[in-house]
Amino acid sequence: MHTEQRRRAADLFKSRGTEFALLANPANVTWLSGHALPVLTGMSPFAGGPSLVWYEDGEFTLIAMEGTTGGADTEVISYPWFTYQGPITSSEKLADIVGGLLKKAGRRPVGAELRHLPAQFKPEEAVVVDGWLDPLRMVKTADELVLMRRLFDLTGCGHRAARQGLQVGMREIDVWGLVATEVERQAGRRAALACDCVVSHRQDNSGGWPQDHQIRQGDSLILDLGVGLDGYWTDSCGTYYPGEPDREQAALHRAVEETLVYATSLVKPGAAASEIDRRMREFLKKAGYADYPHHSGHGIGTVTHEEPRITPYNPLRLQAGMVIMLEPGGYIPSKNAVRLENAVLVTEDGCEVLTHHLSS
Amino acid sequence: MHTEQRRRAADLFKSRGTEFALLANPANVTWLSGHALPVLTGMSPFAGGPSLVWYEDGEFTLIAMEGTTGGADTEVISYPWFTYQGPITSSEKLADIVGGLLKKAGRRPVGAELRHLPAQFKPEEAVVVDGWLDPLRMVKTADELVLMRRLFDLTGCGHRAARQGLQVGMREIDVWGLVATEVERQAGRRAALACDCVVSHRQDNSGGWPQDHQIRQGDSLILDLGVGLDGYWTDSCGTYYPGEPDREQAALHRAVEETLVYATSLVKPGAAASEIDRRMREFLKKAGYADYPHHSGHGIGTVTHEEPRITPYNPLRLQAGMVIMLEPGGYIPSKNAVRLENAVLVTEDGCEVLTHHLSS
Repeated sequence: MHTEQRRRAADLFKSRGTEFALLANPANVTWLSGHALPVLTGMSPFAGGPSLVWYEDGEFTLIAMEGTTGGADTEVISYPWFTYQGPITSSEKLADIVGGLLKKAGRRPVGAELRHLPAQFKPEEAVVVDGWLDPLRMVKTADELVLMRRLFDLTGCGHRAARQGLQVGMREIDVWGLVATEVERQAGRRAALACDCVVSHRQDNSGGWPQDHQIRQGDSLILDLGVGLDGYWTDSCGTYYPGEPDREQAALHRAVEETLVYATSLVKPGAAASEIDRRMREFLKKAGYADYPHHSGHGIGTVTHEEPRITPYNPLRLQAGMVIMLEPGGYIPSKNAVRLENAVLVTEDGCEVLTHHLSS
Repeated sequence: MHTEQRRRAADLFKSRGTEFALLANPANVTWLSGHALPVLTGMSPFAGGPSLVWYEDGEFTLIAMEGTTGGADTEVISYPWFTYQGPITSSEKLADIVGGLLKKAGRRPVGAELRHLPAQFKPEEAVVVDGWLDPLRMVKTADELVLMRRLFDLTGCGHRAARQGLQVGMREIDVWGLVATEVERQAGRRAALACDCVVSHRQDNSGGWPQDHQIRQGDSLILDLGVGLDGYWTDSCGTYYPGEPDREQAALHRAVEETLVYATSLVKPGAAASEIDRRMREFLKKAGYADYPHHSGHGIGTVTHEEPRITPYNPLRLQAGMVIMLEPGGYIPSKNAVRLENAVLVTEDGCEVLTHHLSS
């Protein structure tokens, strides 16, 4: 399912006269190969290094540990990993493989993602290609959208668990337990989870991992949840109350909600990211609330935050096929906090909301 | 609390005439600085690269994103990470810092962990120091032991949750939900979790992440659990039954248990890893069971598996202060499976068991 990605990347390399390349940015390795890198427990101590992708004259090959699965149509060169019958030689074996490939390039230049490539594999004649593929990842393929829709639905299950389970006296980490358990229960397997899970009486109540802060009567809880599965990430944010929100909370919630609806109406091909950002902030300020101290949104895919960033400085214009998060928020330190975040798919004439946790 | 580690490393560098070094192996960065690298969600997309440690003439400095905390007595050079008001320039800023440090070395050689160091930071005159610090990490400091004891206790809470909650009809992932929730509930925050969580009727019932395999009457469940917190890891394994084990299961369980007790009796300074491995396997075979298809144990610390590996080929001799895992197992594919694993601290005249999940 990653042939379209490889076609785009091959076109780019050809247009820039790049015959060989060694790609190491995990976001690109996944995007080119379908190989989901391990996230939850970090790199295996038995891996010889991160998984890499070798590009040569129009073709891409994944280089990864034995047992690694990529997309069905991905060529893989694998090396043995764990053994208990002798010393683990994964590093040496991976070095042999990469050495052999680099030798094919001879003295010709090799494109290399030097920010992620281990120094031991640095080509003698390296052309820096860090960032080259970032713009190509912005527009999602049909297959990516199928996967991402499924993951956004899964993410919604986590929100439902928080909304239904939240009670006065629980701690942030207790609510988090409900969320994480429900997502993995629905997935039938472990999932990487990115989050903010913070109670509104925190001084900085806009984000952070769940701690043992207790939820009191009159608090709200922000749950910003991303699920990472099969190499792709989601994002989403909801704000929940252990009882009925009071008048102040309800007013803030409504203002943020209306800002999100307004933001959604701005999304269409050609719209500038900075313009969406500016108009979202103005809309919320007009409702009488302070500007939020974070971006208005961002792209998402094989990495949790990517272009297009919906930020004050970004002139980038939206294109059909992009998936962006929109996340206005209102914060009154140590008191009230609301953030609401949807994913939208930019369509030919507007957008489609991909997340349903705020309406279900 | 990492001065002892830095003293050991500085002694090594001095003895080998290394004046400058750039360390990038996450296990060493944590070990030298106390800085716990992010595990659960992978490297932040706003990080300019992995955290690094710079060594210069006896002194160590952590190079990491703003907001990073190391040990209290660790020198830190930090660079700005996320901003929404302009493009994120963490990579450029980190490159400036590292470039400035490398310039100080001039044309003198710089030790570098080339397997983990990003290629963009490769020193012109690099001396490969990959693996140099591995032997130094084996013997734990008093401070490390305080932290690890606490983490082993926390790990035990996960086992208790599985033992008490396991029921016929649950799936592996449901049991896992109990385990993960209990560990994070007790920790009061999120924790990285490494695991096997497999039901005995799986064909390969020795390991794997929890899936949606259902637990049936007559099954056992292997829970191999590692908790990663504050930069350090634990490990542990227990085998649990949804009811009373039958005669065959009880006999296998007893044999593995006795192998573990026997293994523990072999641990003392001077004992060779390969000899412990050999005798553990023989002991279990004498009880009438097939050899297990994995190592007999391993060291643990800032990485889940490290030296000393308790394996057939390893001549390494134990020293007081090492923490090793011992994990004999018996497996009858698709039928019965038992693995029991304790952590032991090698003492002057034997060892002390650090895990209590099998006896409490």
